[in-house]
Amino acid sequence: MKHLSTCALALASLSFGVSAVVTAQRPKDEGSPIYGVKLPQGYRDWRLISVAHEAGKNNDIRAILGNDIAVKAFRDGKRPFPDGAVIVRLAWRYESSPRNDSVFPAPQSFVAGPPTNVQVSVKDSKRYAASGGWGYGQFENGVANRDVALTQSCFACHSKLNALEKGADLIFTAYSR
Amino acid sequence: MKHLSTCALALASLSFGVSAVVTAQRPKDEGSPIYGVKLPQGYRDWRLISVAHEAGKNNDIRAILGNDIAVKAFRDGKRPFPDGAVIVRLAWRYESSPRNDSVFPAPQSFVAGPPTNVQVSVKDSKRYAASGGWGYGQFENGVANRDVALTQSCFACHSKLNALEKGADLIFTAYSR
Repeated sequence: MKHLSTCALALASLSFGVSAVVTAQRPKDEGSPIYGVKLPQGYRDWRLISVAHEAGKNNDIRAILGNDIAVKAFRDGKRPFPDGAVIVRLAWRYESSPRNDSVFPAPQSFVAGPPTNVQVSVKDSKRYAASGGWGYGQFENGVANRDVALTQSCFACHSKLNALEKGADLIFTAYSR
Repeated sequence: MKHLSTCALALASLSFGVSAVVTAQRPKDEGSPIYGVKLPQGYRDWRLISVAHEAGKNNDIRAILGNDIAVKAFRDGKRPFPDGAVIVRLAWRYESSPRNDSVFPAPQSFVAGPPTNVQVSVKDSKRYAASGGWGYGQFENGVANRDVALTQSCFACHSKLNALEKGADLIFTAYSR
């Protein structure tokens, strides 16, 4: 009995020690560089704006979700987006599905594999005035990617769209009814 | 003044007449054949389960949404799905985006074009006992497709999955985190 108690205590200490290490190793989420954008709470419950597939280097299949302000603006066709609009792009590896293809009439099915990253655009026309009113962040496993060059590439790419289509307010996605 | 009133009355009558004709011509939604499944109110606000691309004859990009019962079951990994679970598959024409490609580093962007159809699966283990507990319907422009053979093909295809994977409860889609 004494042996068991000692053992349980040792195990408890070990478990406490391991969880302390795990906590210490988990990077604190300071948000994205440049913009300080954080992953919005509950974004996975947000409403769908549209879907897309990026081939090439990305090779992902993606869903674009929005908070209430963003979804209302998309549905009403309101541009520029009002402050407080947040758009979240989730992406997963683009994978052929041999399982679905074995049932479907032809090899045709491509599905979402493991998640790649989540990109967040936050509209705040004052705070992010230098980048067209949008702040950006990319997240992997729920944690902001702190790469400055990567984060700079968000505005660099979206601003190219602005040169092409001023009315788009730097947003590629159209709402899918 | 009198002329104006008469004109307004004439316009009002005309408008009433036109709307009566439009109402008469709009097909009444009797739901799907076999199952009587109707398009659930507010489904476009439901939460995202996953996304997919079907090539070949379908040539669509799709999103799978679920009501609260369905989403909870997906997240908890609960099978079979409880009664009341409703899964909605929205699909749009799969289209290359020359506009996005003109901004992106390479031709790579495929987006959702015009909507094709919406398919609905409703779990009711008693009412739909003869089809594994699921009732099916396909909708175009918000109206049920009344083609019996098309509607029969839903269970025919989903039951093939059942032969392959009994635990899937006839559902192809996996939840994407």
